[in-house]
Amino acid sequence: MLPSIEWSKDSVVMIDQRKLPEEEAYLQCLEYSEVAEAIEKMVIRGAPAIGVAAAFGVALGLLKLESEKNLDQEFERIRRRFEKTRPTARNLFWALARMKNTFEKYRPLPFSELKLRMVEEALDIEREDVESNRKIGSYGKGLLKDGQSVLTHCNTGSLATAGFGTALGVIRSAVQEGKRLHVYVDETRPLLQGARLTCWELERDKIPATLITDSAAGYLMQKGIVSLIITGADRIARNGDTANKIGTYSLAVLAKENGLPFYVAAPSSSIDFSLAEGGGIPIEERSAEEVRAIGGRPITSPKVKVFNPAFDLTPGRYITAVITEKGIARPPFEESLNQLRNK
Amino acid sequence: MLPSIEWSKDSVVMIDQRKLPEEEAYLQCLEYSEVAEAIEKMVIRGAPAIGVAAAFGVALGLLKLESEKNLDQEFERIRRRFEKTRPTARNLFWALARMKNTFEKYRPLPFSELKLRMVEEALDIEREDVESNRKIGSYGKGLLKDGQSVLTHCNTGSLATAGFGTALGVIRSAVQEGKRLHVYVDETRPLLQGARLTCWELERDKIPATLITDSAAGYLMQKGIVSLIITGADRIARNGDTANKIGTYSLAVLAKENGLPFYVAAPSSSIDFSLAEGGGIPIEERSAEEVRAIGGRPITSPKVKVFNPAFDLTPGRYITAVITEKGIARPPFEESLNQLRNK
Repeated sequence: MLPSIEWSKDSVVMIDQRKLPEEEAYLQCLEYSEVAEAIEKMVIRGAPAIGVAAAFGVALGLLKLESEKNLDQEFERIRRRFEKTRPTARNLFWALARMKNTFEKYRPLPFSELKLRMVEEALDIEREDVESNRKIGSYGKGLLKDGQSVLTHCNTGSLATAGFGTALGVIRSAVQEGKRLHVYVDETRPLLQGARLTCWELERDKIPATLITDSAAGYLMQKGIVSLIITGADRIARNGDTANKIGTYSLAVLAKENGLPFYVAAPSSSIDFSLAEGGGIPIEERSAEEVRAIGGRPITSPKVKVFNPAFDLTPGRYITAVITEKGIARPPFEESLNQLRNK
Repeated sequence: MLPSIEWSKDSVVMIDQRKLPEEEAYLQCLEYSEVAEAIEKMVIRGAPAIGVAAAFGVALGLLKLESEKNLDQEFERIRRRFEKTRPTARNLFWALARMKNTFEKYRPLPFSELKLRMVEEALDIEREDVESNRKIGSYGKGLLKDGQSVLTHCNTGSLATAGFGTALGVIRSAVQEGKRLHVYVDETRPLLQGARLTCWELERDKIPATLITDSAAGYLMQKGIVSLIITGADRIARNGDTANKIGTYSLAVLAKENGLPFYVAAPSSSIDFSLAEGGGIPIEERSAEEVRAIGGRPITSPKVKVFNPAFDLTPGRYITAVITEKGIARPPFEESLNQLRNK
């Protein structure tokens, strides 16, 4: 299991996901600003991994401060830099809030001690994410039956998290207990996380997989080729409304129309309890170039206008269950997610 | 309006659609086998254009025969070569049947005369296709309102036909009568006919357009950004079940879920009256390489398994209306399509 990100003494090292699977290149960030840029440019992506990266980044920023001068302002400057990286993933803001709490709690300690506590907190966030994923897998694996074919979208594996994965973690857990599964992987335009990352992870794990274009998913459901759909989440509102990689909403509608279960797997850090429903989730729009070119090669006229929302919103009513590290929530989500919150 | 294909003395010339929009290259076919290969390799594509190409190809094959020896067998050999090129498009078989009828009708004439009649019939098929498209446009334009945004899939323009287009022809007709429309174009993986061809046609026509990934279509419908969806068809059964470019079924389901009209525009030569419903339509599966690489650049592991259906089947119940050159058919399609047949 290849880690997406690691704390390495006084730097943060991440595998450059933009270059996979052609190249296993690593980026070492010595400054927090490099971590922030890596998040924006999607060197690292996936809501849980973004949360860990932001925590590491904040710790790195504090660690590299040479003096305590204007410490509170300096901390805020660092934290705000990360807040601006990607708007949709809840885990980013959740991790930043944890780092802020830790900062405030240990602010009275000697500066060097405070720095250590911040690094420890970030490492806790990383470790807990892997543990969460394993628990999500344990809860979720019972939903998958021996011999089934599963459809997934984007990448929700080791690369999208601190390790193991959310939706892909559920698949891994089911395979580990001996279930024979076949995974259909949406290529996931524009950045092809399915084709590039999920296929690569499944190949390393020797889990049988078939790649399809995003447009073919509906056909697979209609033909009964897949039995269920499982995706990750970038942010979940109290009523189950879920923001996730563009295309997720379409999959959920198609699943409903074809009577197939549609599962979302995510750590509780993806749940935004401040939002009653998903309308308040900001949907990031990314650059036209992501659509106009693939791997640097233009696929259309350079003048063509592009609309490139990176996420969409799946109303909770299309979701069969949300699988978290605290258990499985089923509709009505207002109640079930709230119960998990207090667990 | 750039023609996709032309009869040129004793050859068939087509624009190489695989190279657009980067390059306007033309392929001259001196032998029928080259025309058949061009259809298979998608130098030319789009059901109506495939029909015209097959008719030209059969005429070319006969024209190039040096003697009448084994004429019936030779004709069958040529015709069967085209039958094997692409299985889904109805227009291919429709055009081949017309060419066969013409062959049988004029078989008693002197060989040189028979050859001329075959070329004339192929040219008739070409001319009638453009006329059909114009009529489809005339009937369909009333369904589009000034100021609306329209979503379309794949390429259904001049390039997909002998000229003008089916779904894109409806859009063109509406624009020509002064309606201000905005066209959202699905890029249409794997071969990106939307990004490469439709955007190029719309740019030449100065019709405002925005390119999206196929996965974003649902989001646009959910947000109310588009008011209706219009696509072409490769084959339509008597009950309205429609085979069309992979992804069409998903669009139709999403349109229904969002209360938006979903229109299919096609000449009556796309209707297969031998089929009561769409289950009997063969769905072509194409090579893994179309998905594994984009413009020759790999996007995934070379070992990954791929499922690449080129079309899917949209049940008639999702279709608001079928726009043909004989008028607009609405549900129940068994009746309305049958009425058009006898017009």
